[in-house]
Amino acid sequence: MAQQARAAQTRQQIIVGAAKLFSRVGYERARLNDIVGETGLTRGAIYFHFQSKDDLAKIVVDEFATKSIEAVATIAETGECGMCQIAMLNREMGRLLTVDPVVRAGIRLVIELNSGEAPVPVYLAWIEALKYLVSRGIDEGDVRPGVTPEDGAVFITEAFVGAQVLSHAVSGLDDLPARIDRLTGFLLNGLMPDERLAARPEIGDARLAAALG
Amino acid sequence: MAQQARAAQTRQQIIVGAAKLFSRVGYERARLNDIVGETGLTRGAIYFHFQSKDDLAKIVVDEFATKSIEAVATIAETGECGMCQIAMLNREMGRLLTVDPVVRAGIRLVIELNSGEAPVPVYLAWIEALKYLVSRGIDEGDVRPGVTPEDGAVFITEAFVGAQVLSHAVSGLDDLPARIDRLTGFLLNGLMPDERLAARPEIGDARLAAALG
Repeated sequence: MAQQARAAQTRQQIIVGAAKLFSRVGYERARLNDIVGETGLTRGAIYFHFQSKDDLAKIVVDEFATKSIEAVATIAETGECGMCQIAMLNREMGRLLTVDPVVRAGIRLVIELNSGEAPVPVYLAWIEALKYLVSRGIDEGDVRPGVTPEDGAVFITEAFVGAQVLSHAVSGLDDLPARIDRLTGFLLNGLMPDERLAARPEIGDARLAAALG
Repeated sequence: MAQQARAAQTRQQIIVGAAKLFSRVGYERARLNDIVGETGLTRGAIYFHFQSKDDLAKIVVDEFATKSIEAVATIAETGECGMCQIAMLNREMGRLLTVDPVVRAGIRLVIELNSGEAPVPVYLAWIEALKYLVSRGIDEGDVRPGVTPEDGAVFITEAFVGAQVLSHAVSGLDDLPARIDRLTGFLLNGLMPDERLAARPEIGDARLAAALG
C-alpha cells in the first residue's frame, strides 16, 4: 500500500516535471533527457511509468482537460446564475494557468498538437459544458433572443481558444490572464441584452474564490 | 518580356498548386513531389523558382496576408461606417476562403506553422487594420463606452482566429464561412450598444459585393 502510494507520487512528480518542461520549450524541443533533469528521477524510473514523450504529452493534456472539467463542476456547485458561471469559468481558467504547471502546459500542448485531422476532445468537452450554462442563462432570461445554447457555447469557445493562440504567439501565455479579463466583458456583451447586464454589472467580475468564500 | 511574363505565370501556377496541396494534406504531409504532380510542371521548373517546401509555404502565407490586407483596402473604398466594414471584412474572408486556394491554404498554414515563438505577422496586420476601423466606429458613436481601439481589435482577431482553429479541427475549414456568419452577430453585439445596432440591423448583413454593386 505504501509502495502504491509512492508509485502514484512518483508518477505525479514526472507529470509535473514534464509539464514544466513542455510549457517552457514546447513539445518539439522537449527531450526525455531534460524531463529526467527536471524531475530529479532516473531515466529508468520515468520509463517504468511512461513509454515516450508522446505518451507524457497525452497524459498532461488529459490531466489539463480533467482539471478544466473539475473547474466547471466546482463552479456549478456555487449555484450562481448561468452567465455568472460563464464569467467565473473564464477567470478561473486564467487563474489556474498561473498557478498550475499542468494547466499551463496542457493549453500549450493542445494548440501545438492540434493537427486539424480530428476534433480536439477538450474543445468538445468545453462546448458541452458551456451549452448547459448558456441554456441555463436562456431560462434565466439573460441571453439575447435567437441565441441557441450551441451557438453561444461555440462563440465562447472560439473566442477563448483564439485568445490562447494569440497569447501563446505573443507572450508564451504570460498575458493570457489579462486577455481573459478583457475578453469576459466582450463575451457577456455579446451574449446578454444590455439592460440585463446593466441591471447586474457585478456578473462581469464574478470569481470562483469570491463565490466560495 | 514575353519570357518574363511566362516566368511570372509559371511561378503563380506553382504557388496555386502548392496551395491546393497544402490545404488538402497540411504542411507536414505535403511532399515536393506531390506539388510537381499538382502543377503538371517538372521538378526542375519548381526548383528554379523555389528552394524548398518551407520556402513555398512562406510564400503562400505571404500571399494570403497580402490578399487579406487588399480586402481591407477594397472595403475601405466603400466608405461605409466602421462597424459595417468590420462585418464586411469578416464575411469577405469567409467568401475568399471558399473561392481562393491561396487564402484557404494560408489560413491552414498560419495555424500549423505558428510555433508560439514569435508574433504572427498576419495577426498583427489584422489587429492594426481593425484598430483603425474600431477607432472609426468610436468616432461614429457605434462602440460601447470604455472599449479602446486596441481592445476591440484584439477581441475581433481572437474570436476570428479561434473560429479558424476550431473549423480546422472539426471540418478542415469547410464550415468556416458558416462559423464566420454566426460569429459576426456576436462580434457586433459585443462591440456596439444595443440601441445603435437595433437602429441599423442591416449592419449585420453588410457584404462587400452588395456595397460595390
